[in-house]
Amino acid sequence: MSMLNIPLFFQDTAAVEGDMGMLWMLLSGILVFFMQAGFTLVESGMTRSKNAVNIAMKNFLDICVGSITFWLIGYSLMYGDTSNGWFFWGGFMQGEGADLFFQTMFAATAATIVSGAIAGRTKYTTYIIFSVLMTAVIYPISGGWQWQGDGWLTNLGFIDFAGSSIVHSVGGWAALVAAFMVGPRIGKYVDGKVMPIPGHNQILATLGVFILWLGWFGFNGGSQLAWGGDDATGASTVVLITNLAAAAGGLGALITTWIWYGKPNLAQSLNGALAGLVSITAGCGNMTAVGALLAGLIGGVIVVFSIEFIEKKLKIDDAIGAVSVHGVCGAWGTLVIGLWGVDGDTGIGLFNGGGAAQLGSQAIGVLAYAVWAIVLSAIVLGILKATLGLRVTEEEEIKGLDISEHGSIAYPGKRVREYEE
Amino acid sequence: MSMLNIPLFFQDTAAVEGDMGMLWMLLSGILVFFMQAGFTLVESGMTRSKNAVNIAMKNFLDICVGSITFWLIGYSLMYGDTSNGWFFWGGFMQGEGADLFFQTMFAATAATIVSGAIAGRTKYTTYIIFSVLMTAVIYPISGGWQWQGDGWLTNLGFIDFAGSSIVHSVGGWAALVAAFMVGPRIGKYVDGKVMPIPGHNQILATLGVFILWLGWFGFNGGSQLAWGGDDATGASTVVLITNLAAAAGGLGALITTWIWYGKPNLAQSLNGALAGLVSITAGCGNMTAVGALLAGLIGGVIVVFSIEFIEKKLKIDDAIGAVSVHGVCGAWGTLVIGLWGVDGDTGIGLFNGGGAAQLGSQAIGVLAYAVWAIVLSAIVLGILKATLGLRVTEEEEIKGLDISEHGSIAYPGKRVREYEE
Amino acid sequence: MSMLNIPLFFQDTAAVEGDMGMLWMLLSGILVFFMQAGFTLVESGMTRSKNAVNIAMKNFLDICVGSITFWLIGYSLMYGDTSNGWFFWGGFMQGEGADLFFQTMFAATAATIVSGAIAGRTKYTTYIIFSVLMTAVIYPISGGWQWQGDGWLTNLGFIDFAGSSIVHSVGGWAALVAAFMVGPRIGKYVDGKVMPIPGHNQILATLGVFILWLGWFGFNGGSQLAWGGDDATGASTVVLITNLAAAAGGLGALITTWIWYGKPNLAQSLNGALAGLVSITAGCGNMTAVGALLAGLIGGVIVVFSIEFIEKKLKIDDAIGAVSVHGVCGAWGTLVIGLWGVDGDTGIGLFNGGGAAQLGSQAIGVLAYAVWAIVLSAIVLGILKATLGLRVTEEEEIKGLDISEHGSIAYPGKRVREYEE
Repeated sequence: MSMLNIPLFFQDTAAVEGDMGMLWMLLSGILVFFMQAGFTLVESGMTRSKNAVNIAMKNFLDICVGSITFWLIGYSLMYGDTSNGWFFWGGFMQGEGADLFFQTMFAATAATIVSGAIAGRTKYTTYIIFSVLMTAVIYPISGGWQWQGDGWLTNLGFIDFAGSSIVHSVGGWAALVAAFMVGPRIGKYVDGKVMPIPGHNQILATLGVFILWLGWFGFNGGSQLAWGGDDATGASTVVLITNLAAAAGGLGALITTWIWYGKPNLAQSLNGALAGLVSITAGCGNMTAVGALLAGLIGGVIVVFSIEFIEKKLKIDDAIGAVSVHGVCGAWGTLVIGLWGVDGDTGIGLFNGGGAAQLGSQAIGVLAYAVWAIVLSAIVLGILKATLGLRVTEEEEIKGLDISEHGSIAYPGKRVREYEE
Repeated sequence: MSMLNIPLFFQDTAAVEGDMGMLWMLLSGILVFFMQAGFTLVESGMTRSKNAVNIAMKNFLDICVGSITFWLIGYSLMYGDTSNGWFFWGGFMQGEGADLFFQTMFAATAATIVSGAIAGRTKYTTYIIFSVLMTAVIYPISGGWQWQGDGWLTNLGFIDFAGSSIVHSVGGWAALVAAFMVGPRIGKYVDGKVMPIPGHNQILATLGVFILWLGWFGFNGGSQLAWGGDDATGASTVVLITNLAAAAGGLGALITTWIWYGKPNLAQSLNGALAGLVSITAGCGNMTAVGALLAGLIGGVIVVFSIEFIEKKLKIDDAIGAVSVHGVCGAWGTLVIGLWGVDGDTGIGLFNGGGAAQLGSQAIGVLAYAVWAIVLSAIVLGILKATLGLRVTEEEEIKGLDISEHGSIAYPGKRVREYEE
Repeated sequence: MSMLNIPLFFQDTAAVEGDMGMLWMLLSGILVFFMQAGFTLVESGMTRSKNAVNIAMKNFLDICVGSITFWLIGYSLMYGDTSNGWFFWGGFMQGEGADLFFQTMFAATAATIVSGAIAGRTKYTTYIIFSVLMTAVIYPISGGWQWQGDGWLTNLGFIDFAGSSIVHSVGGWAALVAAFMVGPRIGKYVDGKVMPIPGHNQILATLGVFILWLGWFGFNGGSQLAWGGDDATGASTVVLITNLAAAAGGLGALITTWIWYGKPNLAQSLNGALAGLVSITAGCGNMTAVGALLAGLIGGVIVVFSIEFIEKKLKIDDAIGAVSVHGVCGAWGTLVIGLWGVDGDTGIGLFNGGGAAQLGSQAIGVLAYAVWAIVLSAIVLGILKATLGLRVTEEEEIKGLDISEHGSIAYPGKRVREYEE
């Protein structure tokens, strides 16, 4: 009788742990959902007020579209059982409950990264189609390579715990292609000179970054996909070192701008915290606290120079630095596992006795996601350019997308006064 | 001995599940609390800046008043054991812990729905009294009809999982009565023409909607009232389909405005997401994902036309569309269970083989809550009109309620400049 | 065999409860993290727009610095095992997981309380050094007196469940010293008259208070440090009565300003809710619902008069009322346990049959934290004044710290227009 009893008991503990895991994933998904609000505030705060409604409409669209497409088809393309290691399929409307909810929010995040980079000049219709394809096809297929569990990158030993590459750099490289193909905003490059186009509300941008930081605890912590026993400790540690990396990234950028520009700059420090977060997203299950701190700190330094490089050398007008934050730091965060990553107590990085194998796998993954995102985005946007067109007219751009694309303005009272004067 | 052991063991699992349920309810209550911030931002963002402090003071008051009145008496009037199926009583200060906390937030929500509709011309004293009565008496009594567990609507087979009717349409119909009795804002109807009175900050309104959407995961998901086993799966599904309905509602309104007005409109799309949320609030425990999507989508279309109808045909000045979002879509969300609702795998709606019985029950419930809210609001506001008065003077209204009712303005620096010019 | 089985089973239940406790602490820590956003909005909303970037940079810095210093050394100074009851040590980088994460957020909160009081005239470099010392040394050492579990205040019977004294009044008294030593803003006291310097955005301040209130559920509720059985009920009750105290504090201030100034004032009502929250922070594990309500209500009244007293009688320019909210109400919230606190069903306060012993312990604690915070702050700021200097130049202050300290402005579009006109 006691033989019967013990298994019953363990079975039930597993059920309770399953329930706790579901609770944690659901709550994490709720936190990740809130990141859409964060993106809206960061992107609108860091760009002109005449395009703020358009930004809100794009971020709002991403969650609306992504919630439906990812449920309808994206989840199946990412997690379906029928597979050759590169492509997956499991039928329509397959995911369910907390798992689908959590994963949906990741798809919406990948799409929304693009919206900020191309702010102020892109057609809304074009953006809608891109958002649909991103959440329904582009992100899910390459996501499956690693997260389906039997994809070619998983089998290669590639590690990307919460998506530095899978989510952020896919979004970031797509943003790079989009910003390049759409072209710079009018007034950004005048007579070969780079002109600043300041945002309109740094306090909203700050609030946005706090919301993103908050949501990231769910983004990274929830990627443990379970709670109970080692998973509870594991997810807690993930959240802890995610916070350390964000803090270090913020300080890294703050200090860098202080040295480089003479004064500690808010917008760049905010980007530094985001850079720190992206830099620990891949490795948050394979990093010591010190390793996470260093990964974030370096990410915060990288992002400042990367933004300068893309803006001034490549002359690509990424309106809010999304390519640097998500693309470049996404790559950095993925690679750093190969430098000082750990697997439990075992070093797997080059600098902690793990050899170069992991770094090699990480580099292949970084490359694969970059190539995929760039090629697919270029094809999609190329077709859109040849058909619908990517860009509003010059007149519409100068007037602002809020009026030309949406027929309303973000701050009616003020704008009316501007017209009157 | 093993006979003794097994019950002990099951008892303990139940305790753990009880603890998990308490955790989920508490966290859900915390999310619902945050909806007050969402309402503040939506309502102030969608109205003039000269009334923004007043909006904040009303929403702030609702949570302060509601927290105290619902604890003191409301909970007892709603969940008390002494009952005749229509009225309930259990003594003063009866609820406790996570349950009372969660339910309190619902009462505050019902009250706060009214505040936006009557923005810009209502006396603060009047609003206070209405808020007290709403959270202490009006909402609790009719809430008990269904949620006490032995009310006449429960026994009728009426379904309202999280409160499309019980919370939202009660708030919405009260808002309708209030907006009608207070009368339109000066300048809204001029020489028979309907004039737009645009809000002052669409980005804050967008943030507000994201916060409301976020809080709704707790509002609907927490209404499972438990976590563990089927409840964990159930609550997760509730959250998932709540999100689908919100997304579909947002898209529904976005597309409708695009077709109807020629451009995709932000404010209406935001209202569409809220409409989608209200439309799934009753049925989120009795709907397939496809059913939820449709319910939300239709809600998003309804809300656009309902706002037009109330504003242009009924000539009732609902400053932010609260009646349409909460009242009309609350009714729709309640009725839709009778159209394509399910109970587990069994169809209970008219269109999925369930016959007309459920639709009948839903219609009775919709009607009952409408009559209750309209009659009680009319009585209370009628008495207030005859005594304190509902409305500020014309001079005070033109100056703005912030100065006349609260002696301060929302954005001091800017306003000072406006006066100087 | 059954003898073996029962212990196994209980052991496992404990593990599950441990996991639930970890989940609750982690989620609470996430909520407390979000309070940094709340502080940013309250402080920037309640001060001039020309200093908003600086406020954001200070709050942003606090979480960045605090996350690193508290992990590196602060946790060890607060919770280390080697102790004499006054000082603690446990080695570098000692805390881990959910516990360290949760405690870190408290350290960052203590530091950030200071930032608002000295808004608009303090050097950023000076603030950085103060923030480092606050999170690394000042807060942890005195925190250990009570929360390490074997400190001199614990052994005295002192009660401070979630930190009315340990966190809030330490921050508040440090803010008092800082505001005094930095001196008032230019234009605050002119020819012996007290001039109002209104904030620039009351809606952001309102949102900030809602976020703080939200975060406080984690601040107080998470201080249960566990979930499961009595702890689940306990933490739920903590959250419930925290909400009651906040609501009562908000109403207390609202009514007080109505009587005192003739109109219900938003900024003071918001401060009243915060005062209510601080007033229940120490006693939220030792208070009935009625007791909590009274503690909060009185806190809401106190804060209005305290702000007047400090501003007009002491002529100390605390830009947002931080000393009154956190310092004075922190002391009040600590003392009230000695007046009507309970321990389960036993009264421990003077007015409910508990005698004067508890009140004595509470008074000693209040005094100890005040002396510690005042003396340490005075020493640190005295050294900083003699070396780096505390204050920017008059020219920089008039221009605004955003330009002088950070080289950018919060709302570029608007400011540019102001210059043009």
